[in-house]
Amino acid sequence: MEKVFKTKRMLHFGDCDISGTAYFPSYLNILNGVNEEFWAHIGFPWHKIIWEDRWGTPTVHISSDFSSPSFFGDELEFEVTVIRVGRSSVTVHHEISCEGNKRWSSTQVLAASDLDKHCSIPWPAEVKEKLLSLLVEEQSGG
Amino acid sequence: MEKVFKTKRMLHFGDCDISGTAYFPSYLNILNGVNEEFWAHIGFPWHKIIWEDRWGTPTVHISSDFSSPSFFGDELEFEVTVIRVGRSSVTVHHEISCEGNKRWSSTQVLAASDLDKHCSIPWPAEVKEKLLSLLVEEQSGG
Amino acid sequence: MEKVFKTKRMLHFGDCDISGTAYFPSYLNILNGVNEEFWAHIGFPWHKIIWEDRWGTPTVHISSDFSSPSFFGDELEFEVTVIRVGRSSVTVHHEISCEGNKRWSSTQVLAASDLDKHCSIPWPAEVKEKLLSLLVEEQSGG
Amino acid sequence: MEKVFKTKRMLHFGDCDISGTAYFPSYLNILNGVNEEFWAHIGFPWHKIIWEDRWGTPTVHISSDFSSPSFFGDELEFEVTVIRVGRSSVTVHHEISCEGNKRWSSTQVLAASDLDKHCSIPWPAEVKEKLLSLLVEEQSGG
Repeated sequence: MEKVFKTKRMLHFGDCDISGTAYFPSYLNILNGVNEEFWAHIGFPWHKIIWEDRWGTPTVHISSDFSSPSFFGDELEFEVTVIRVGRSSVTVHHEISCEGNKRWSSTQVLAASDLDKHCSIPWPAEVKEKLLSLLVEEQSGG
Repeated sequence: MEKVFKTKRMLHFGDCDISGTAYFPSYLNILNGVNEEFWAHIGFPWHKIIWEDRWGTPTVHISSDFSSPSFFGDELEFEVTVIRVGRSSVTVHHEISCEGNKRWSSTQVLAASDLDKHCSIPWPAEVKEKLLSLLVEEQSGG
Repeated sequence: MEKVFKTKRMLHFGDCDISGTAYFPSYLNILNGVNEEFWAHIGFPWHKIIWEDRWGTPTVHISSDFSSPSFFGDELEFEVTVIRVGRSSVTVHHEISCEGNKRWSSTQVLAASDLDKHCSIPWPAEVKEKLLSLLVEEQSGG
Repeated sequence: MEKVFKTKRMLHFGDCDISGTAYFPSYLNILNGVNEEFWAHIGFPWHKIIWEDRWGTPTVHISSDFSSPSFFGDELEFEVTVIRVGRSSVTVHHEISCEGNKRWSSTQVLAASDLDKHCSIPWPAEVKEKLLSLLVEEQSGG
């Protein structure tokens, strides 16, 4: 499996505001869908872990820089990289571009969480193993 | 005018995901509405500056920590503080709580921007004056 | 209790598209929040019936006419009227205006539904009684 | 060109509510994206007609029946059919299914509209010709 997960999204009319460029909460809604696709890609689709195993990966931190505007009709390219794996959290970095031009980046921390108790849990062993196999920088710990 | 702007929002059913807690992009959609209310409160409603004066305040950076979950039906209290005023940007800090318990915080940079050319512009003088009058920390510059 | 439930909503920047007028799915998101407020008003807040009693009121039909555009910054006035009460459904009519000018209307059917089994259930007796007390037209039935 | 336009969409986590099934305003946001893809498919992408030609196709009516719930992780299949072409409007019918099981349908009227004046305009000749070529029922008029 490639360490960097890549996918694409069309920026839709409904994601844009009066300027015709992306409304930033819509950007983050799209990003969440990319995360969902990433987790399916690595073997742990959210609809399985949530419905069957009753845990999820809520976002506990996200920092985003919107460096250049995107317009509806643009095809955005997403690159997702795992940059840190903790006991019950993972930090992923997202680079988003269009035709080679950077549009925006986000660094996001997701935490494994019990869906019913709303508290964090350690990664299941096979999930942690998979995340570590994708780790790009030497920053596992915690 | 109080330096800290306060307002409230009900967290709605439609803002929440399968866990019954806020979906974070919906949180940021709500936050953007709070910003809109803040700008009206300080005398520069977005519908006026965008329609009549053709500039806006797109978000160029936002960093958020979601420390404790919120459930639909919760009444969220927002506190908006200006912490830095630059030549064409402003940094605001948001503290969001419910019945005295912290739920989440965001630090956000908005940039004055020409709506048609999609480029940054210096703050109009009266806007900068107003923002500086609300500044809580001694960090104006840029 | 008045038969017609009235409330207001500011139309926000984030609800509007490139034309500066409401994006219709955002209109319906706002409408759902108005419904949520209506159900709290009549004594059955969704956060109680969903969390404690495990039933909800999903929408099974909605028909909307958008007769005149709304712009962000507009204050919309909502009027909610119960026009039919069935065994496990209720039909509500929404009239939405701004400063006396009609903007849009929707007719919506909600069904009482078991949240876990995803099937319809008869209204609890006290809910049906309350809905019937609000009925404006003589159309209760089957 | 086939008369029925078909496309697919993954139903995402962020489109679903506490029941794990689609939040209906999110359904309509997805539907709007399908419309956008349909218009690109027939040769009139919204980002071209809006940016270059300054007209759009706002929705003036939509009626939807949600017959069976969809869950996040479902792959939805959309079928878009033109059922009426008027002087400045078009009526399209949407059938949405998953693995052969009907989930929901919508009938929607879009009107050609001048983006700056917010008023309806007749279809440009080449647009009307294309829409008529896709018409399934003999109901052109108006």
